[in-house]
This record gives sequence, structure tokens and C-alpha cells, in this order.
Amino acid sequence: MKDNSLNDIKYIKQCFNIARKGLGHVSPNPLVGALLVKNGKVIGKGYHKKSGHAHAEVNAINNSTKNVAGATLYCNLEPCCHTNKKTPPCVPLIINSKIKRVVISNLDPNKEVNGKGVKQLREARIEVLTGILEKEGSELNKVYFKYAQKKNPYVTLKIAQSLDGKISEAKNKQTWLTGKESIQYVHKLRSEYDAILVGANTIKVDNPLLTVREVKGRNPIRIVIDGKLSIPLSSRVLDNNEPEKTWIFTSQKSNLRKLKQLENKGVKIFSIKPATDKKINIKSVLTILAKNKITSVLVEGGQEIFSQFFNQKLFDEMIILQNPKILGKGLSSFNSTDLKKLHMREIKQLGADLRIVYDSK
Amino acid sequence: MKDNSLNDIKYIKQCFNIARKGLGHVSPNPLVGALLVKNGKVIGKGYHKKSGHAHAEVNAINNSTKNVAGATLYCNLEPCCHTNKKTPPCVPLIINSKIKRVVISNLDPNKEVNGKGVKQLREARIEVLTGILEKEGSELNKVYFKYAQKKNPYVTLKIAQSLDGKISEAKNKQTWLTGKESIQYVHKLRSEYDAILVGANTIKVDNPLLTVREVKGRNPIRIVIDGKLSIPLSSRVLDNNEPEKTWIFTSQKSNLRKLKQLENKGVKIFSIKPATDKKINIKSVLTILAKNKITSVLVEGGQEIFSQFFNQKLFDEMIILQNPKILGKGLSSFNSTDLKKLHMREIKQLGADLRIVYDSK
Repeated sequence: MKDNSLNDIKYIKQCFNIARKGLGHVSPNPLVGALLVKNGKVIGKGYHKKSGHAHAEVNAINNSTKNVAGATLYCNLEPCCHTNKKTPPCVPLIINSKIKRVVISNLDPNKEVNGKGVKQLREARIEVLTGILEKEGSELNKVYFKYAQKKNPYVTLKIAQSLDGKISEAKNKQTWLTGKESIQYVHKLRSEYDAILVGANTIKVDNPLLTVREVKGRNPIRIVIDGKLSIPLSSRVLDNNEPEKTWIFTSQKSNLRKLKQLENKGVKIFSIKPATDKKINIKSVLTILAKNKITSVLVEGGQEIFSQFFNQKLFDEMIILQNPKILGKGLSSFNSTDLKKLHMREIKQLGADLRIVYDSK
Repeated sequence: MKDNSLNDIKYIKQCFNIARKGLGHVSPNPLVGALLVKNGKVIGKGYHKKSGHAHAEVNAINNSTKNVAGATLYCNLEPCCHTNKKTPPCVPLIINSKIKRVVISNLDPNKEVNGKGVKQLREARIEVLTGILEKEGSELNKVYFKYAQKKNPYVTLKIAQSLDGKISEAKNKQTWLTGKESIQYVHKLRSEYDAILVGANTIKVDNPLLTVREVKGRNPIRIVIDGKLSIPLSSRVLDNNEPEKTWIFTSQKSNLRKLKQLENKGVKIFSIKPATDKKINIKSVLTILAKNKITSVLVEGGQEIFSQFFNQKLFDEMIILQNPKILGKGLSSFNSTDLKKLHMREIKQLGADLRIVYDSK
């Protein structure tokens, strides 16, 4: 029995590792890895590669080097049993393949599955074990879980700051703070999120491309919160070979000429009502993004945007990239007056910088 | 040969470890540990316990369980050979004890020794090896090296701040930022430094005791920079059972009544000329402290004092105790406008806080 549990943990960990290969490609689906083990040997592996493509379980069965009858299937997420989607459900395939035992980390939070997959497997007299490394599994699929449970994207604030909490030397002054290791890391992050979000001021001051260049990976959707429709048409974020990959949220409906010019540049415009303080309502933005299948958002600046997400508790995670500079006078990362406490999850040195990851709870 | 070097490294590391026991007690002397090894066995150990007491080498020889003739002496600092001091020199004792070999980490930077000790040992046909773990040795004795070479105290800025670089919620508002693990650590630090230094405003706002209470250890000298002699007589830093352990630097010579009242409370007053900007000249303060045998200073606040030390590059090390709170608006740790870069040396989690140590170079 003891050996069995140790093996279960070992194989589920391997599922996590192969599942991660789908990062940046599977959204709005979860990251899933699957292993088939027979007589103590791995006979098949698979992971979910891309939304719309085959599930991990199917890939593991198809890649198997031996007959899978009698094997144990390891899978970090409960196999699916619902049919209103792009690919056929996995549970019938598992049953038909005469797999003997299924070991799972997390139940699927999707209401169409959520325990029903396990139930069907058990009804077919397959032994099912759930909850192996459950915490690690939900951490791996934090984006999918948030999106499935709250119908809202997973939001990460990424803040590059000096040791004394400044994001630039002065308001409206571009300041390069972090080193090349941090920049590479940010580009990797971008490739893993569905969308990047910045305020209009960041566009005007830094004029960033917001694309993935320092590492291999796909570009996310670029979202600009621009209440007054004030960003210049020459902004680099509008240089776009991929139509509709830049989205602007504005409360400015009347400036038809600018709206037209932006649309001509391939930009998708979302006109929303301003909040009482004339600011764009961030909560509404997130709701609209969720409806447009954006499951994860990386917020990259600036102070005003960080503060809104922070004060309204509309974020899940905060990544601080802290450079060992002192700026003294300068623009602080936040302008709020609320005293709030975060929970530190991870610390890592990135070149001369420090990366600190905090959870919002 | 190879085995020999490995043993040399092993024993010198042991010297560092026993030397550290003197931390907080040996100033203005160095931290020194000594080992005697004969036929592959440690036959004697000793360390410098307190300024004015016996040196490590003497203690090792006196504690020896066997005849030390023919033994190897390990010692992290070059044995002394000068006579204008409290205790007799070690070199003649080593020679007379017929020790065969001496292994040293650092030469003594004190001009009275600095290689002369080694020379005398070699002239007595003792084999001497120097430079073993030299970097670690000078790190251990960073205070002693700075003081001997620059005739100035080793200065550490200790800053407790929020994640966004704020030291309090507002100017003149006391804010408790860090957790109990950090507070214990600060008390331990205090017990290891000769003096703590703060500005008058920190006394007025926080009214701290600046003593060692959370751990065992001796109290350092408490130094207040109070140009205008403005701290209240009721300040806790003046509650003093140990006379002359609170020192005030002021440019106010004419307020004889307050001066008398402070002196009656056992305070030592240093009247110095103000700098052109009417501020107390920090550089002069450090020179005076050095003359008064203060070899190390822990600077604990506030913003004005941190900024002066920082802008004038009058510090060696900065310890940030960073709590995962966001204060938003509030008092920043620094008010300077200079962009300066530090070198991160160490990161450690202290409860919910992060301790980050930076070198000034």
C-alpha cells in the first residue's frame, strides 16, 4: 500500500510536468498531463497541447507502446464526460480501453463534469483514486480554476520597481529599472497569459510593444484602458500584423474619427460606461474579458491601473521585480491609502533583481 | 598536499565559528578564533572573548589537552606582535611553545602588525600559510577591517519598510510594519553593534527605547542626532540606568538649561558646528564616533537620516526588512533624487517578512 501511494505521487508529479508544456496554448482549457502505467512501467504519455485538440488522456492512449487493458491511468484532472464541446468525452474511451485504475489530482471544477466523470468510471467498476497532490494540482491550474469558478480572468499584477518602491523617476518619465534576466522572464510570462493590460499613460510614456520577443512564445492580446481615447495613432502597440490582437476599452463614444482610425489599424474597441469617478470600471472590463474567453490577464502598469486593481481587490497574484536601486523621489507603485497585507509565496534572484511573488489572500 | 589544504579549510572554518562567539563583546578588537591540531586531532581551542582579555591564540594554548610542541595553530587573523596594548603579544608565546606550523586567514590590517607577525614567525623557522578563506575572513571581521583601514565606523542602515517602500503611513505617524521574527532579529543586531543611531524625529514620533530586550545581549550606545535639541525630556531613550550610554549630537550650544537637564539624566552631549544647510554634518559625527572607539553603527531611522547617509555614501551595508503590506501614500524610506545601485548579498524569509541585505558597492 505504501509503495503504491509513493508511486501515485511520483506519477502525478510527472503528469504536472508534462501538462505544463501546454502553458500558453490551451486556454480556455486546463493544463492536463496523462500517463499510462502497466506492470510498473510507463507505457504511454500525453498532454493537452492546444485548445480544440485532443485531450491528454486520448494522447496517452494513442501514444501507448503496449495494450492499455489493465493499465493505471494517471491524470492531473478528472477526465471529461460532457459532449457539448469540440472533442469527444474521455470517460467512454477509458472504459472501452479496459483501463483498470484511474488516479486523479483534481476534480474538474467545470459544472458539466465536477465528479460526474469519476462517478461514471466507478460505475464501470474502474478503481478511482482522487485528491493526490490536490494543492499542487490546483496551483498548476490556478487560471482554469479561477475562470471556471468565478467566471472571471485570473489577474496578475507585474510591477517592476526600485528597492524603495518606485516605478519611475518621475511621473511621465520612462525609467528602465530591471535587468535582462527580468525582462526575459516578463516576456515568458506574457507568452503564458491570454492578455496583457496597461493604462493609456503607460502607452504614452513608455510606448511599449507589449509583445513576446526575448523568448519563444505566442503574443498575448494587448489591452489598453484608454477612457479618453488619448493614445497617439503612432503608438507602437497599434503596429499590428495580427488584426484584433489589440483591444481598447474607452468611455469615449463620440470621437468617431479616432474610433475609425483605430479600427482601421485592426484595433477592437469596447465602449463602456464610465464609473462615477469618470474612470473606466475595471470590474466591468474583467467581466467583458471573461465573456471574450480571456482567462488570464497580466497587468503591467502604471500606478493608476495598479492602484485600481489593488484597491478593488481585483487581482489574484502580484509579482514584484525589485531592482537594487534607490530612486528616492519618484512615482510610487501605488497611490492608495489602504493598508493591505499580502502573502509571500516565492522569492527568487533574477540576475541583480529579486522576484517576489505574493498571493492576494 | 590536497588533504592538507582540505583540512586547512576545515579548521579555518571552525576558527570563524568560534570567533563569532565574541560578537558584541570584543570591540574595538577583531573577532578571532584559534585551534591547535596535532596528529590530526584538535588539542586546543580558544577565542577572543572580550576587549582587554586574553587573545584567542593564548586561550587555545592554555586550554590545550596535550603538549602543543609540534602542533599546527589555526587562527583566522594574523597573531599580534606589538606591545603598546593591554595584553602581551602572541607571536613570542607561539615561538616559545614550539608550535611547528601556523595557518592564517587574514593578515591584521592594523599597521602595528600587518605582516610583521608572520615575518617574525617565519624568522623563527615556523611554517606559515596565509590567505585561507581570506574573503570569508574579512567578511567576518568587516567591522574591524573598516575601522582599522578607514578610521571610521562600519555603518549599516536598517530599514523596516512596506512592499512599496514606505516606512510609515504618514509623516509623524508611528507605524508598526514588521513581524516578531524581524523584531527579534533587530534586537540581536543591536546587541552586535557598538551603537544605534536615530534622528530626533524618530524619537519624537516612535519614542523607542532602542535597547536589547527580545534576545539576550548587551545594550549598545544610543545616539540621537538632534540639531535643535528638541527631543522631550520624557523620551524613553533618556530613561537610563547606564550613565553615558545615550549620546546626543547637537548644534545648539546656547540652550544651557536643556543641556544641563539632559546631562543630569546621564546623557553625553556632543556640540558640533552645523553644516551649511543647518543640518548636523553626518560625516563629522562618524569621525567623532570613531575617536570615541565606536567601530560599528546601526542606523535605525528616519527618512531624513537614511537619506543623508545614503546621499553622502556614508554606509557600508543596508538591511531591508520588507513586510508584505502596501501602504500606498505614506512616508518613503528615502527622499533623495539620486539614482544609485546597490549589490544584493543575501535574502532570507523572516516570518511573513523578507530580509534583504545589500552592500553599498
